[in-house]
Amino acid sequence: MLRKDRIGAREVAEHAGCSVSAVSLVVNGKDSGRISAELRERVLAAVTELDYRPNRSARSLVTGDSGTICVVLPDPANPFFGDVLAGLGAAIGDGHTLALVLPTSGTDYDQRTVLRAYSLDSAGVVLISPGEPVLRGLVPRCPTIVVDGPGRTPALPRVDLDTVAAGELISDHLTGLGHRGFGYIGPKSDKPTFRTRRSAFLDRVAGADVVRTLDLPDWDPLAAAVTTAAVLPGWLDSGVTAVVCADDLLGYGVLTALDRLGRTGIAVVGMGDLPFSQLCRPALTSIDFGGRRAGESAGRSLLSWIDTGERPRRVRVPAKLIVRASSEKG
Amino acid sequence: MLRKDRIGAREVAEHAGCSVSAVSLVVNGKDSGRISAELRERVLAAVTELDYRPNRSARSLVTGDSGTICVVLPDPANPFFGDVLAGLGAAIGDGHTLALVLPTSGTDYDQRTVLRAYSLDSAGVVLISPGEPVLRGLVPRCPTIVVDGPGRTPALPRVDLDTVAAGELISDHLTGLGHRGFGYIGPKSDKPTFRTRRSAFLDRVAGADVVRTLDLPDWDPLAAAVTTAAVLPGWLDSGVTAVVCADDLLGYGVLTALDRLGRTGIAVVGMGDLPFSQLCRPALTSIDFGGRRAGESAGRSLLSWIDTGERPRRVRVPAKLIVRASSEKG
Repeated sequence: MLRKDRIGAREVAEHAGCSVSAVSLVVNGKDSGRISAELRERVLAAVTELDYRPNRSARSLVTGDSGTICVVLPDPANPFFGDVLAGLGAAIGDGHTLALVLPTSGTDYDQRTVLRAYSLDSAGVVLISPGEPVLRGLVPRCPTIVVDGPGRTPALPRVDLDTVAAGELISDHLTGLGHRGFGYIGPKSDKPTFRTRRSAFLDRVAGADVVRTLDLPDWDPLAAAVTTAAVLPGWLDSGVTAVVCADDLLGYGVLTALDRLGRTGIAVVGMGDLPFSQLCRPALTSIDFGGRRAGESAGRSLLSWIDTGERPRRVRVPAKLIVRASSEKG
Repeated sequence: MLRKDRIGAREVAEHAGCSVSAVSLVVNGKDSGRISAELRERVLAAVTELDYRPNRSARSLVTGDSGTICVVLPDPANPFFGDVLAGLGAAIGDGHTLALVLPTSGTDYDQRTVLRAYSLDSAGVVLISPGEPVLRGLVPRCPTIVVDGPGRTPALPRVDLDTVAAGELISDHLTGLGHRGFGYIGPKSDKPTFRTRRSAFLDRVAGADVVRTLDLPDWDPLAAAVTTAAVLPGWLDSGVTAVVCADDLLGYGVLTALDRLGRTGIAVVGMGDLPFSQLCRPALTSIDFGGRRAGESAGRSLLSWIDTGERPRRVRVPAKLIVRASSEKG
């Protein structure tokens, strides 16, 4: 085998019997529709055989590929973040490496996780739903965008979810249906996104006959169902007829609890519009925060910032109420 | 600000007024329970202020931190992979950076995505559910483990899901309940994991009265419900009384289709035991492939390989059948 430090795109091209630009297209993921599958296979075989490792700065000069874009988010198992990632991927395209830096312990990330993302020599970083301590004193080391961030993130451009509109849309919908007794279930969390979801809804129903709240220690919908089942009978006796949840996962737990109690006619509304909200029975009324659109917007802003050096503006993605059977008149 | 190339752990320690070992603990995520929250904040502030970027090889010498472990998987939105990631994170611990390299287009990855993972200077790589073309001719550039891989992956250690046992457990369960007419629904996919799920079940019920199959073009449970709703009446008329799905997501679609058709008493079984299988009604009988255990096993094997240089053995994670209401006698 040749010495690794002598291997360049030219050597790969010679080995594969093709042009340097064909190698460049394949290595940078821009070959789709431009070269044949057979040539692509030959280039990949040559890359592997010669152990060719494209040099990032050389790549950048030749192809405009700006390297790795790192994403940090709290919980890869929550489908909402899958939507945001899909939007980011679509906007960023195949010319960059998209890497998700995961917290290796616990269900949320801290500032060390962000420092690790920077240490991967990233061209850009996207921080999704960070807690306030993550951003406190953080000095960005490359273009960095916050999606669903706290109320104040002075140094960084943001893509916001409209968590205030979420609370208002839900309260208006339920009040319009005649409900006067409300329960609110959310996670025990300091995250600004959950504080706002809660306060926007509770402020709006402050004059209602009955308002009850429950803070859950975790996200597990089955645990939510069990805890909720314990408090629901008291809530219903006191006049609660509509239960609002900070996340659809918790909403599924409430639907299960109501089912086990044999109670019907209670309205349930979630937030986040996860895929199963269409499939569960009754289908769950929810807020579509536009996770995919938020991801696309963050991806586009980040690319433009990397390319032009110009800080992008703040963006707010509108929220929509999706009314389903769980909040129809029972 | 000092010149970046002069900044080491010593300078950070001086700035924060603490020991070099305290800096090392924080930077390597090993401070939990060993130093105060206040000291940790001070170290992080100094790291940020001085723009300290720990040198990986220096870190490795001092702390044993071997850097980044890269994971590549097809679809971050599928909750099964969330389980595998949680297991990997638990086994790998907070001393490494765990990074997920995502395909930026489409819903699966190819060999380029893997080459990108290698180009991040990884200490180890985990490839989850790769298709055969991903591994063809691939030369691993660091310890690399395959989870849920194809039947033959000669060069790489593997953690296997027991997809053969899955088909056998389901056929034995349904046959034991007296079913003699079966439908099988899976994705139109060349992935070995889906070929095996399908063949293991169909081989076992080859002598049944009726066997029908349906290949779906995508994973969307709502699309699955629509397509399934179109074929189900014919299947049921021909004597199908039990429907087996290659994945719980498809199972939710079948439950919805049966509900819309107003049909009861048809057994439905999924594979993967996703969280909602406990919550949907009827709760979905499924195969627990032990995703979390597979992730833990892959993480432990990889760390040991990195540390000792010794290739780990192949591991098979046992599958379990979780019987729920969807396959009880209707």
